[in-house]
Amino acid sequence: MQGCAFVDGEFVAPEHAKISIFDWGFLHSDATYDVAHVWDGKFFRLDDHLDRFEASLRALRLDPGVSRQRMREVMHECVRRAGLREAYVEVLCTRGRPAPGSRDPRSCTNTFMAFAIPFVWIADPAKQRRGIDLVVGTPQRIPPSSVDPRIKNYHWMDFVMGLFQAYERGGETVVLTDGQGHVTEGPGFNVFAVFGGAADLQAARVVTPVAGVLEGVSRRTVIEMAAAAGCTVEQRLLDVDELRRADEIFLSTTGGGVIPISHLDGVPVAGRKPGDFGPVSALLQARYWALHEDPRYVEAVQGLPAAR
Amino acid sequence: MQGCAFVDGEFVAPEHAKISIFDWGFLHSDATYDVAHVWDGKFFRLDDHLDRFEASLRALRLDPGVSRQRMREVMHECVRRAGLREAYVEVLCTRGRPAPGSRDPRSCTNTFMAFAIPFVWIADPAKQRRGIDLVVGTPQRIPPSSVDPRIKNYHWMDFVMGLFQAYERGGETVVLTDGQGHVTEGPGFNVFAVFGGAADLQAARVVTPVAGVLEGVSRRTVIEMAAAAGCTVEQRLLDVDELRRADEIFLSTTGGGVIPISHLDGVPVAGRKPGDFGPVSALLQARYWALHEDPRYVEAVQGLPAAR
Repeated sequence: MQGCAFVDGEFVAPEHAKISIFDWGFLHSDATYDVAHVWDGKFFRLDDHLDRFEASLRALRLDPGVSRQRMREVMHECVRRAGLREAYVEVLCTRGRPAPGSRDPRSCTNTFMAFAIPFVWIADPAKQRRGIDLVVGTPQRIPPSSVDPRIKNYHWMDFVMGLFQAYERGGETVVLTDGQGHVTEGPGFNVFAVFGGAADLQAARVVTPVAGVLEGVSRRTVIEMAAAAGCTVEQRLLDVDELRRADEIFLSTTGGGVIPISHLDGVPVAGRKPGDFGPVSALLQARYWALHEDPRYVEAVQGLPAAR
Repeated sequence: MQGCAFVDGEFVAPEHAKISIFDWGFLHSDATYDVAHVWDGKFFRLDDHLDRFEASLRALRLDPGVSRQRMREVMHECVRRAGLREAYVEVLCTRGRPAPGSRDPRSCTNTFMAFAIPFVWIADPAKQRRGIDLVVGTPQRIPPSSVDPRIKNYHWMDFVMGLFQAYERGGETVVLTDGQGHVTEGPGFNVFAVFGGAADLQAARVVTPVAGVLEGVSRRTVIEMAAAAGCTVEQRLLDVDELRRADEIFLSTTGGGVIPISHLDGVPVAGRKPGDFGPVSALLQARYWALHEDPRYVEAVQGLPAAR
């Protein structure tokens, strides 16, 4: 496996990137993380990811024991050592192990880790061209009153059970509800519905769930791009029934940016033909990748050889 | 650290028991486990734990790649190699890693691991004698509609956040509610409330939550013992307000059996004096340990040296 990890203060190959099975990060999923991506040798919105990671650390009372500057250096170094021009770069912090015989999380020494691996798409580009079938899964997304989804976390059993459903129904991925008919999020992405906009982009309404979701950096990017394009952006509750009536549906994710959805539960979105995902999705997808050339959003990976 | 682990098909010292950070068991907390205990050189209700572990594996569609007989042998061997007469023995299975570039859980090769470490009390014996203060935490227990608590899992962020609250209030551990005022469970234990029984044990009502909880092996043991003692056992919804009016409160756990509670949120249970936990708790605690001599419930660890 290509890549590079940073574990126990050292850079190691991915196959040597391991964690003690006694770390609460594993035994209690007591950890937080963030993922930035590198495209064409440049990090995209790295500071926004680090801002969120630091907010998650504070909320969970985790201390990674390294400065923000050191985190940034480690992320750059992982990508540089892996020699990747397109990468998925994760930083994470686990609770560690409590004192022997103790169950007090305050007695733990937290750990900091990072890794860079080849870019991971939510669905591979061939599937994206053919069109992605999104399935509405039956598990309820773990509610904010239990685990705050704004704190990026590894509590994904609901998603994994939903993924089994999606794959068995011929779908590519899954979105979960809050158990009361409202759309929340999927494994690694936020969801957007578009209403109108076929004749006039400025008449389009772009809707995304406001509660029970990660406040994704890609989600924020979409909101900013849609507003700049003159669309009306609505962050509010979104019923599954309303989603089924959308003119366009797309996902936002570090794992591919703006990913148009062709089918919802096997039904073509707005009766569209294969490969036609709608004008708003197309516009936002194009602008998303254009932002990767904008110096306000990117920073070059230090020491990476130039593109061939 | 004393103990022995079984990882990647080999027995290793605990400090070498590690899992890939790319295993979904870590990255998505996509795993299940079970914990049996060894007391005085004997496993307690090992078959009940293996029954539940196998049910959890089926529910999560995990294949540990080893037979039940092999699991049992590995558990015995971990304890024997660790040389522990009192041990906490865990078996676990993780999803493993999907095929490169895939997010399909069906493409993963699942892993089987186990470990034996010195017996872990929910609260150490000194605290138990002084009396344990149970705190009602504010996080909602992750609901069954998201993650089925009957499938033993590592989704514990709600518990960990609750433990921070408990320790800061001077308590020893935490119990969570379902967000609607009903008691669920705590980190590693079920909860029981006792009403009546001071004058006549057979007049006691022993109540434990029926929904949103792990169906603990210790819980089942308590239910069986209480019924055998002539108490009325009620498995039903239990309001926090009702818990506050209980004559006795105790926990059931593999980490210590029947653990009486002295204080709920700092208030003495039923106004009791220190060290007086009530007759039903005392009876069930004594009978719980007596069962550890009953050949119907125990099996000796193979090859373990006799007690000194």
